[in-house]
Amino acid sequence: MFSYLDLQTQNGQRIDVWPVPYEGTVSFGRGTSQGPEAILRASAEIETWDEELGQDLADLAHFTTWSAFEPPVSGPEEVLRCMQEELASICTPESFVLTLGGEHSVALAPIRVYQNLFPDLAVLQIDAHADLRESFQGSPCSHACVMARTRELGIPVAQIGIRSLCREESQRIAKETNQEILTLFAHDLPSPEQAAAQVREFLGERPLYISFDADGLDPSILPGTGTPEPGGLSFSWLHRFWPLFFGKCRLVGMDFCELAPLPGAGVVSESVAVRCINRVLTAFLRQGGPNAPG
Amino acid sequence: MFSYLDLQTQNGQRIDVWPVPYEGTVSFGRGTSQGPEAILRASAEIETWDEELGQDLADLAHFTTWSAFEPPVSGPEEVLRCMQEELASICTPESFVLTLGGEHSVALAPIRVYQNLFPDLAVLQIDAHADLRESFQGSPCSHACVMARTRELGIPVAQIGIRSLCREESQRIAKETNQEILTLFAHDLPSPEQAAAQVREFLGERPLYISFDADGLDPSILPGTGTPEPGGLSFSWLHRFWPLFFGKCRLVGMDFCELAPLPGAGVVSESVAVRCINRVLTAFLRQGGPNAPG
Amino acid sequence: MFSYLDLQTQNGQRIDVWPVPYEGTVSFGRGTSQGPEAILRASAEIETWDEELGQDLADLAHFTTWSAFEPPVSGPEEVLRCMQEELASICTPESFVLTLGGEHSVALAPIRVYQNLFPDLAVLQIDAHADLRESFQGSPCSHACVMARTRELGIPVAQIGIRSLCREESQRIAKETNQEILTLFAHDLPSPEQAAAQVREFLGERPLYISFDADGLDPSILPGTGTPEPGGLSFSWLHRFWPLFFGKCRLVGMDFCELAPLPGAGVVSESVAVRCINRVLTAFLRQGGPNAPG
Amino acid sequence: MFSYLDLQTQNGQRIDVWPVPYEGTVSFGRGTSQGPEAILRASAEIETWDEELGQDLADLAHFTTWSAFEPPVSGPEEVLRCMQEELASICTPESFVLTLGGEHSVALAPIRVYQNLFPDLAVLQIDAHADLRESFQGSPCSHACVMARTRELGIPVAQIGIRSLCREESQRIAKETNQEILTLFAHDLPSPEQAAAQVREFLGERPLYISFDADGLDPSILPGTGTPEPGGLSFSWLHRFWPLFFGKCRLVGMDFCELAPLPGAGVVSESVAVRCINRVLTAFLRQGGPNAPG
Amino acid sequence: MFSYLDLQTQNGQRIDVWPVPYEGTVSFGRGTSQGPEAILRASAEIETWDEELGQDLADLAHFTTWSAFEPPVSGPEEVLRCMQEELASICTPESFVLTLGGEHSVALAPIRVYQNLFPDLAVLQIDAHADLRESFQGSPCSHACVMARTRELGIPVAQIGIRSLCREESQRIAKETNQEILTLFAHDLPSPEQAAAQVREFLGERPLYISFDADGLDPSILPGTGTPEPGGLSFSWLHRFWPLFFGKCRLVGMDFCELAPLPGAGVVSESVAVRCINRVLTAFLRQGGPNAPG
Amino acid sequence: MFSYLDLQTQNGQRIDVWPVPYEGTVSFGRGTSQGPEAILRASAEIETWDEELGQDLADLAHFTTWSAFEPPVSGPEEVLRCMQEELASICTPESFVLTLGGEHSVALAPIRVYQNLFPDLAVLQIDAHADLRESFQGSPCSHACVMARTRELGIPVAQIGIRSLCREESQRIAKETNQEILTLFAHDLPSPEQAAAQVREFLGERPLYISFDADGLDPSILPGTGTPEPGGLSFSWLHRFWPLFFGKCRLVGMDFCELAPLPGAGVVSESVAVRCINRVLTAFLRQGGPNAPG
Repeated sequence: MFSYLDLQTQNGQRIDVWPVPYEGTVSFGRGTSQGPEAILRASAEIETWDEELGQDLADLAHFTTWSAFEPPVSGPEEVLRCMQEELASICTPESFVLTLGGEHSVALAPIRVYQNLFPDLAVLQIDAHADLRESFQGSPCSHACVMARTRELGIPVAQIGIRSLCREESQRIAKETNQEILTLFAHDLPSPEQAAAQVREFLGERPLYISFDADGLDPSILPGTGTPEPGGLSFSWLHRFWPLFFGKCRLVGMDFCELAPLPGAGVVSESVAVRCINRVLTAFLRQGGPNAPG
Repeated sequence: MFSYLDLQTQNGQRIDVWPVPYEGTVSFGRGTSQGPEAILRASAEIETWDEELGQDLADLAHFTTWSAFEPPVSGPEEVLRCMQEELASICTPESFVLTLGGEHSVALAPIRVYQNLFPDLAVLQIDAHADLRESFQGSPCSHACVMARTRELGIPVAQIGIRSLCREESQRIAKETNQEILTLFAHDLPSPEQAAAQVREFLGERPLYISFDADGLDPSILPGTGTPEPGGLSFSWLHRFWPLFFGKCRLVGMDFCELAPLPGAGVVSESVAVRCINRVLTAFLRQGGPNAPG
Repeated sequence: MFSYLDLQTQNGQRIDVWPVPYEGTVSFGRGTSQGPEAILRASAEIETWDEELGQDLADLAHFTTWSAFEPPVSGPEEVLRCMQEELASICTPESFVLTLGGEHSVALAPIRVYQNLFPDLAVLQIDAHADLRESFQGSPCSHACVMARTRELGIPVAQIGIRSLCREESQRIAKETNQEILTLFAHDLPSPEQAAAQVREFLGERPLYISFDADGLDPSILPGTGTPEPGGLSFSWLHRFWPLFFGKCRLVGMDFCELAPLPGAGVVSESVAVRCINRVLTAFLRQGGPNAPG
Repeated sequence: MFSYLDLQTQNGQRIDVWPVPYEGTVSFGRGTSQGPEAILRASAEIETWDEELGQDLADLAHFTTWSAFEPPVSGPEEVLRCMQEELASICTPESFVLTLGGEHSVALAPIRVYQNLFPDLAVLQIDAHADLRESFQGSPCSHACVMARTRELGIPVAQIGIRSLCREESQRIAKETNQEILTLFAHDLPSPEQAAAQVREFLGERPLYISFDADGLDPSILPGTGTPEPGGLSFSWLHRFWPLFFGKCRLVGMDFCELAPLPGAGVVSESVAVRCINRVLTAFLRQGGPNAPG
Repeated sequence: MFSYLDLQTQNGQRIDVWPVPYEGTVSFGRGTSQGPEAILRASAEIETWDEELGQDLADLAHFTTWSAFEPPVSGPEEVLRCMQEELASICTPESFVLTLGGEHSVALAPIRVYQNLFPDLAVLQIDAHADLRESFQGSPCSHACVMARTRELGIPVAQIGIRSLCREESQRIAKETNQEILTLFAHDLPSPEQAAAQVREFLGERPLYISFDADGLDPSILPGTGTPEPGGLSFSWLHRFWPLFFGKCRLVGMDFCELAPLPGAGVVSESVAVRCINRVLTAFLRQGGPNAPG
Repeated sequence: MFSYLDLQTQNGQRIDVWPVPYEGTVSFGRGTSQGPEAILRASAEIETWDEELGQDLADLAHFTTWSAFEPPVSGPEEVLRCMQEELASICTPESFVLTLGGEHSVALAPIRVYQNLFPDLAVLQIDAHADLRESFQGSPCSHACVMARTRELGIPVAQIGIRSLCREESQRIAKETNQEILTLFAHDLPSPEQAAAQVREFLGERPLYISFDADGLDPSILPGTGTPEPGGLSFSWLHRFWPLFFGKCRLVGMDFCELAPLPGAGVVSESVAVRCINRVLTAFLRQGGPNAPG
């Protein structure tokens, strides 16, 4: 396989990159199992220098890319169990794992492991879909349920970019809003400055896990996702958000899921994915990163 | 074939969906004959709940998808004649037919049938091209002539998103503007609020037919059309326009044409098409729809 | 969905066509879940007249195409259980079901159901792979194990076209040959006449189920399979085999699996699949079919 | 556009190459309108030296490639009328025109024009389909009817490679065989030597027009056709046939139709097309060609 | 090959269009060698009327499309040498050459030739990348070095849209800014009005060469480039820029490079390329063009 | 990158696998630079057991896959120089290197290095093209010249499968045949038994290097090459040839070149490539391999 960014340096924070090419039983094929390889491959072509922030990610971090997770064929519960087992045996509070999906359902494994390490964990979700269904296509572990499962663990969830949901999810958000769920809908999006302030207030100083579903971005700039939804976050909105957002909170891990590369449409989607991941990491690490004295 | 939205309900307004996979004699192939199937297939994956309007289209309408029209091979005039015959035999003033093209030329058949039912019919055209040529590639029934033919019937036409036309079409628009043609050019687009007011004033309380050419939208969000033209309508502009626009006017029918799915580029274009159709219907029907007491 | 052959007639034997677009958890995507739709769609373009046999399949059979099976997401054992339950509730000794996979693993469900109906059932497998592994990728229900599972039921298996296997499978074949397994390897293939005689002798007058893995054919003529293996059966060898083979034996059901359509490479693979299925049916049914007086 | 073979020489027989990218009204798109350009483009990469015959086509002929025919949009009868008008105004008994389709229906125009020039014209058809239907999809000028129309003109037709037909076509062949139609079915193909003798005897010394439908070849070697049919002519059978066949008969024109290039599958189909055309021309012209003293 | 715009007129300024399908030694293939043909082919479908400016490019210019440059295989220095030789032998101060790449490295040839004709030449670069590396992948003539080579010639360079660079390039820009380099970064882009004023002041009345790298635009509207970078120039920003920018400066030549068409994703990228080129030419030529009395 | 066969064993002969993704300056793109990765990736899916020979390649050899060669951008001579330098520094008479191209031109580097180690080296070439041109597209190091360069070194060359050449190459073969060149043309191919005897007699007991151009095989079974030529070697002919051929001669190295994977057409070509390589190695190594007592 390929290595994330393909750097030869050992500067700054160590980041473990975990490719999880898992795509559940598919009837009409979505392609998210090809996501990790596409991201790793594209990453070698992307400059690590961030002109706006005046920082080079290669100074702030180095990356260790693990072998790809080999999902068992016995269903999604078993996949999550194996992922958790593997991750829990390696992960310490000092580890920073970047999980590359695969379906969004795989995010549940690192969320559970990180909650064991940081009991007051909070989650920031970038997504087009609320993912708050109780069950979908006969499984409580579908990609459409990952935040329902997260909420069951008592973890507060901030959501940005939501624009596709069913009435039940809408009602749940209305009921829980501002206490356990903060939803910034795409059709009513505040400025990056306002959003950064709102989310910071909601999350407080909890340790933070970011779960980034590729379809949170608008499909004009990231068309390669299983269920593209127009009206999403622009690249520049999100790009500006991260440096405004990071401050006191400590980012402990993150995932990037649901990229489904489009073989006939070039490498725009995976290049954008790498840019998004790098921006999160650069914006966070320039402050000192997870192991800096808080 | 597939069914639009694949709902199992019978709520609200009945809408008949008519796939017309017609693409005229082609030398270099454009792919609009694949449009209807792509739209129907994508529609099953799209949520019917509209979070912003607080409405579920599945409460407002149910859909009956007809077998696809089988175009005869004897040229475009004959295609239009057969379409009209088939449609006229079924359509009553209470029918709402959603025609899925195919080339934009097919719009002429429902426009003629609806004008017979509603003699003061007006047309609202979403398009990149003015379609006001007298003739193109040797035929007066080309996709580039559909609004010239509509105007010949005395039907007033409002156009939104126009940005590709020849000098003759430009001169015609200049001459007829505000009396029989209202053209909102893409390079000089007013706000959705202003546009809604302008178009409402132009159309008055005439029964309305909407002819939606996929290339009215910007190709960044809908790349799958035969002749993509940059500088088009953004998804959010149009999304905001519809709820502002609908009020007194009665929508009697509509078409969505010129989608040419891109097999190597995912399903963004067809997903956007469904979102656009659903928004028009939801924005209109929440007021009561065509059969509501006006 | 589409209907097999799209005939409007009700002649001869009723054949139930069951699309099973199941593809197990995939890491690198193979595409067999697209197989059933591709076969159904291609079937409408294929002539039913068989010039060589002087028979029209449309005189011998009519087809009822079921809705596609919707595989649960909870793993392959559960998929097989649901398939069996659904099939057993419908299938009688008079039914003839043509199952369209999907992975080859799905063949196990109809084989089990037919064995309940016909306890002395035998299986004729067309395949590149022996499929005799005890377990593969952590599951005893993998596509690579389907004939190991079939043998466990005590069912004799004749295999034609085998050319890809591991040493353990080779040893098993050597041990069981001519008693419970008859393997005609592709590199040592007898003439169709000899093969027909050998297989008839091996199978005797047992009721027969045919399990047809697309990769039994050479990839020059059927490139669209998950694991193409050169050196396979030519189309003409197999075409000549069937009329020579059928005689006393009663065919009770069949499947065609592992077709993975190639979107950029035309429709050769799916057209060949339909031709192969039609040839089996025509060669068998011209004698009177399953319900003829034996 | 491109030039056939892209030679810079003026040796031997002049051959006019006429690209006719016509594809009739299509519902599901077949791609034969892309055929002429693909053939011209591929031709520049192919060696003109024929090692087996010890001849260089560049010594025997030179090529003039016309601008592509621009089919009118008013249906197939009008297309044929325009083609005939254009061709008749240029063609003399000394002309040799190589028409590159497009649909097979376009062959009717050169056949009619050549019959006017040579009243005792005969046709040799390479094809998978008999093309003897009276009408198809509502038109007597469909690609499925081209030989029915040819027979109406009293022209005898020899067919090689036929394997897909309906019962009515089969009955017609049975009735007319050996008098006006000679059909060499693919499933009962004689050796090239026998076939050459049979066809020569059938055709006698009539001036000959060759109509070559790409699907006559087996799809393993030429997958890029609209309706691929397995069990076809092998490349080597046909390659060996031509030098055995040509002798006294005078070839006056030919077409190559129904190539539908496959963008994702390389250039095999179009390369094979060029090799087939070149072999016909080399095998014929080494004897002196159409204008040699007979 | 094809002709740019395929006009039959001889109005206004003659523009020579030079296709240069050069792509240097590639390990992972980028596809820019297909750019010139894609642009020429798309150009025939684009209207030449500019509604906003009230001008028809067909009144202002006519186009002569040269045969494509055939790059030698002996490395990039030799390619540039041959290009320069060919260009210098044809080009006079009155010529206007539009070079269609190919890699951005090919821009160096016309820049050198135009500097010989106009010693005080300046360059305006539209690009995502600064292209100021001293050397890349072992060559000083890589596409990543083209502006370093240009600066060595003493030519001042204005850059618009830059957003991907390494630290060394960032430092160089910081050092040379406003004297010899003016860089308008994409993340800090002024309004078109301000940008036009800034660039005009920087360039003064020097003769101008425009080097347009396709990736300067945002990949949402032009996805077909070798190294897509999100956060780029919007189509409308650039569209508005040109009429504001042109005034006293004389445009003497231009190139459009790095378009890599995406076969599975339609023709959006190449259509946008043509629109961009036409806008530059229309905005400049409506003032009288290069040969107008300055 | 990926490892050839992905074995975890260390049995038998060590074989070094060298990916050389070199593709010279391309105008219209052929894709051979993608060949090495496609072969490595496909190799993991292929069984190593050879049923016919009763041997498992995993018992006979183990594989060490090197990092891919990074070709310099300064032209083909420099590429060959760097390859030779790298190879000569590692290669001893005991090494067995399997080079995976890339263009066929890269074969010249290992041929030169092996000739230094074994002065009486002979070459066996599987190919559609004679590759005996003195120069092509301005370079003596083109893929079309590799055997002309080999012959200049005094190395005898046996060629199998040749069917595409120019008159000059034909004349050269006629002149040198049976002394320094043995050419088995595809159109006049002897049986595998006869061919094995002829080639063995021609080569005698010289140390042997095999240069395998993918297009030697017929494109029906290996369509993914830059210049497909119909009428080639069948898979079964070649499969039977190798065990008959190997005897006294010592194979010292080999390459497999010119595979150009077809992204839209599945993995047939690369799977066939792996099968071909494995068959050569198994047929040779079961005798004891290069380091066995001769």
